[in-house]
Amino acid sequence: MKSDLKIIPLGGLGEVGRNMSLFEYDGKILIIDMGFRMPEEDMPGVDFIIPNISYLKGRQKDIVGAVFTHGHYDHIGAIPYMIEKLGNPPLYASGLAGGIILKRQDDFPHLQKLNLTQVKAGSRVKLGPFVVEFFKQNHNISDNFGFFIETPVGNIVHTSDFKFDKNPVYDLPTDYEKIKALGKRGVLLLLSDSTGAEEEGHSLSEEVIMENLEEIFKVAKGRIIAATFGSLINRIQQLIALSEKYGRRVAVDGYSMKTNVEICKRLGYIKSEKGTLIKTSQMQEYPDSKLTLICTGAQGEGQAVLMRIANGEHRFVRLKKEDTVIFSSSVIPGNERTVQFLKDQLYRQKAKVYHYKMMDIHAGGHAQREELRQMIDLLKPNFFIPIHGQYSMLVNHAELAKGQGVPEKNILVVENGQTITLGPKKMVLEKGRVEANYIMVDGLGVGDVGEVVLRDRQTLANDGMFVIVAIIDRATGKVRGSPDIISRGFVYLRESKELLYETRKKVIETVNKTTGGGGPVNWSYVKDNIRNKIGDFLYSKTQRRPMILPVVIEV
Amino acid sequence: MKSDLKIIPLGGLGEVGRNMSLFEYDGKILIIDMGFRMPEEDMPGVDFIIPNISYLKGRQKDIVGAVFTHGHYDHIGAIPYMIEKLGNPPLYASGLAGGIILKRQDDFPHLQKLNLTQVKAGSRVKLGPFVVEFFKQNHNISDNFGFFIETPVGNIVHTSDFKFDKNPVYDLPTDYEKIKALGKRGVLLLLSDSTGAEEEGHSLSEEVIMENLEEIFKVAKGRIIAATFGSLINRIQQLIALSEKYGRRVAVDGYSMKTNVEICKRLGYIKSEKGTLIKTSQMQEYPDSKLTLICTGAQGEGQAVLMRIANGEHRFVRLKKEDTVIFSSSVIPGNERTVQFLKDQLYRQKAKVYHYKMMDIHAGGHAQREELRQMIDLLKPNFFIPIHGQYSMLVNHAELAKGQGVPEKNILVVENGQTITLGPKKMVLEKGRVEANYIMVDGLGVGDVGEVVLRDRQTLANDGMFVIVAIIDRATGKVRGSPDIISRGFVYLRESKELLYETRKKVIETVNKTTGGGGPVNWSYVKDNIRNKIGDFLYSKTQRRPMILPVVIEV
Repeated sequence: MKSDLKIIPLGGLGEVGRNMSLFEYDGKILIIDMGFRMPEEDMPGVDFIIPNISYLKGRQKDIVGAVFTHGHYDHIGAIPYMIEKLGNPPLYASGLAGGIILKRQDDFPHLQKLNLTQVKAGSRVKLGPFVVEFFKQNHNISDNFGFFIETPVGNIVHTSDFKFDKNPVYDLPTDYEKIKALGKRGVLLLLSDSTGAEEEGHSLSEEVIMENLEEIFKVAKGRIIAATFGSLINRIQQLIALSEKYGRRVAVDGYSMKTNVEICKRLGYIKSEKGTLIKTSQMQEYPDSKLTLICTGAQGEGQAVLMRIANGEHRFVRLKKEDTVIFSSSVIPGNERTVQFLKDQLYRQKAKVYHYKMMDIHAGGHAQREELRQMIDLLKPNFFIPIHGQYSMLVNHAELAKGQGVPEKNILVVENGQTITLGPKKMVLEKGRVEANYIMVDGLGVGDVGEVVLRDRQTLANDGMFVIVAIIDRATGKVRGSPDIISRGFVYLRESKELLYETRKKVIETVNKTTGGGGPVNWSYVKDNIRNKIGDFLYSKTQRRPMILPVVIEV
Repeated sequence: MKSDLKIIPLGGLGEVGRNMSLFEYDGKILIIDMGFRMPEEDMPGVDFIIPNISYLKGRQKDIVGAVFTHGHYDHIGAIPYMIEKLGNPPLYASGLAGGIILKRQDDFPHLQKLNLTQVKAGSRVKLGPFVVEFFKQNHNISDNFGFFIETPVGNIVHTSDFKFDKNPVYDLPTDYEKIKALGKRGVLLLLSDSTGAEEEGHSLSEEVIMENLEEIFKVAKGRIIAATFGSLINRIQQLIALSEKYGRRVAVDGYSMKTNVEICKRLGYIKSEKGTLIKTSQMQEYPDSKLTLICTGAQGEGQAVLMRIANGEHRFVRLKKEDTVIFSSSVIPGNERTVQFLKDQLYRQKAKVYHYKMMDIHAGGHAQREELRQMIDLLKPNFFIPIHGQYSMLVNHAELAKGQGVPEKNILVVENGQTITLGPKKMVLEKGRVEANYIMVDGLGVGDVGEVVLRDRQTLANDGMFVIVAIIDRATGKVRGSPDIISRGFVYLRESKELLYETRKKVIETVNKTTGGGGPVNWSYVKDNIRNKIGDFLYSKTQRRPMILPVVIEV
């Protein structure tokens, strides 16, 4: 099988985020991205989810390196949780992505130093049997790379997250000729971003966003408070430039945003005149009409800056009637309710609110159908695999590729953990699956929260818990005194005295009946009995099913 | 104050759902709607939320009656939970709304019989100082009423949920002349639906939806599985009629939908030819091309029919490649992720999927900005209050009314629990507030789940719980044996033996140190000490904060 290449996606297919895939040839493995994703609603307490790297266990020596497309956490966020397990392989990333990776590593001081090389667009790096050539792609963060990967079976293009923008702001426009030239070198397989595959037309140019934002700057009388993602470097740059044009100082607030702005300033990815950037604490020194605050919290996150401002809990900023609040970001699915709550709070305080549904003041970072077609036309690949996105997006992207002339048999819709075998003339989806399930990170624990723990958390969340402590006299087999009950999240105990009284009686009855025989007592049977009887009893009284935990102590 | 009318909204303002308001004149009270709403994401285990009716406590004799706009649960769903507390007053509703109210009451057999009168459009009912005239409004359920209410201070129009539709399907078009005539009788105050106040233009006509649905019926080869809300009676009627046109039998599945179709069939609100409707169990008797299944689950609800089909758990229906699945409903904010999960499951099984973002196969039930302007123009009210909707919608609706010529001083944006005093020439927002907080329903409990219980549920959900049972020897003040630990939702215990071992040691240390003095022991101090020390210890080891519940038993 030496002549075939294996491609194994470990994350990012059939989901948005957690991007990571492997290329393997002749036993040598190249890693592309190590991202995380945010937990689902039914995973309370989980911080984020990372890819399962069991497949790489014991293969540290075979890893020739890892390349990163850009500095967003869904592409780099899992590094600290897996880098040592991977044997600290050499990493390659752009200047900005590298800067963000290194800065994040500061939060994990116990880890070894990373073996990171920062590369430029046009760089070529030989990693075992692979030569990776980095090329520039527009996205909503600077220094975003696609990969042109020369392999022994043929050339593969991995697009990364991308969009085409003829008029980006503070960034170079898409170089169509360059991409076409890559296509001319022959592309055996294209792996292309599917996040926008269900959106018709072309993504908005950042130039349009800039113009619309400027309309708001023109009329705003008081402070401008602009909330966006901390990772949306291009938007932050636009807001700084507009503020300078309209004579406003700029304060930046929110941990992730401040960190990113610092890195970008230092590396030259964000430009501002001397004196433009001020501290939040200095805002009171300037008139409102001369101030912009760029901050986090556009998703309605509970502790982010905008929510603190809306709730009157920010250290320096109290909302005023003349303030203009801009939501320059889309709403991530699942956050609609909290964003609405936040908007309502702002309206209650009479602020002027602009959001992306009222005006084009946000553009996503992903190519829409028109651009996706164009990418296929420019590269003319033999084989095609849609990557990055929900399963429905992958299917719609595959359909689109068919429409652009890629033969149906040369297209595969793949799921995480499946293996693709690629030869110069064929692409096959293998039957088996590599482990690719969710690995959950919760606090310091990586992978120790699984199905059982999550199911318990859900049960506890829905109806609370009910601990019954019964002390049983060894001699008589009878309950001594009155059983203790500890319950949380079930009913308000102070107002449920009657229920508790009856429950205690029921516990005593149940135990005495079970242990009354005089022979040896089966304690696990006694506990099961308490659990079932009291469970049914509480359900009949409340139609709730708290988790019942009997503690039986023999004295 | 005899000459003034009081209006008190108890729900539905600053939120979507839970609609209920009071009109009070000379001590006599008229109730409009008694709706519920679904819980927020941070209210695990809560079934729904109803209005607080403390204001009506002890005033049963003053209630002259309650009128209902239509049969959706956000307008009638709270009836069983409050009707007896209100003294079982006379209720007035349309034929269909009345049918749904009575059917629901069957689920509450312990309640008194309702005192319900079914009225028709054009009916006038005198209730104390009020005369309520019911008029027809288009919505997405039949038999939807607006109210023209004659009061001693002037006429008030309450629009209910409405939209204007010139070409509805199986319903009468909006009678603009009728509404204009109401306006000519003089409207002192208009209370108008704000749910669509942030949507530009005009809502889609049901005729367009019908045409688009027909396009799908024309090309579908296998079964058509159409998911929508169980309450969307008009859509269900459309799907039945199209099925008849294309020679398909129709099975209806999902509890709420089956119940509604039964009521509507009986009352004549859904029409079908003899033999069209079959049971789900009979589906296998017909060829796939001759079958439509209308079912619940378009929101991705875990146990609804479409999810069971997608997961291969439905009793009679297994998905096939030729099946066409239609999502004929919008996605309720908060459900985006589960709907995407459901769609992906359907795509994985190769079904053809249509949803409202791909094609106009769903129309909402609410007037958009063009219709809202038209309503104001037709009725020409002196005073205006936006009702039904999030606070941002109320504000935008108020702005719109200003644009239509209602003077700013005659418009009030009101919140639940505020009191409006209305005279023939003035409208004032009073300072005080009536209790209008959320009353939560969980199982059989109404209002017994409050802040404390919810906070506990959230804590339990995030990091689980940790019960420590320490038996202490009265004589020595020392822990006897090894403390018992019961933990759920925190870590996977089987893989945390080391942590549990260390924790036990820590508990023994902590107790022995606290009780070692020889004097009388302060047990609540001991418990606090365990809680704090073990809490910090577990956090240092895991960065999680489970709820710690110490049980100390002296023997």
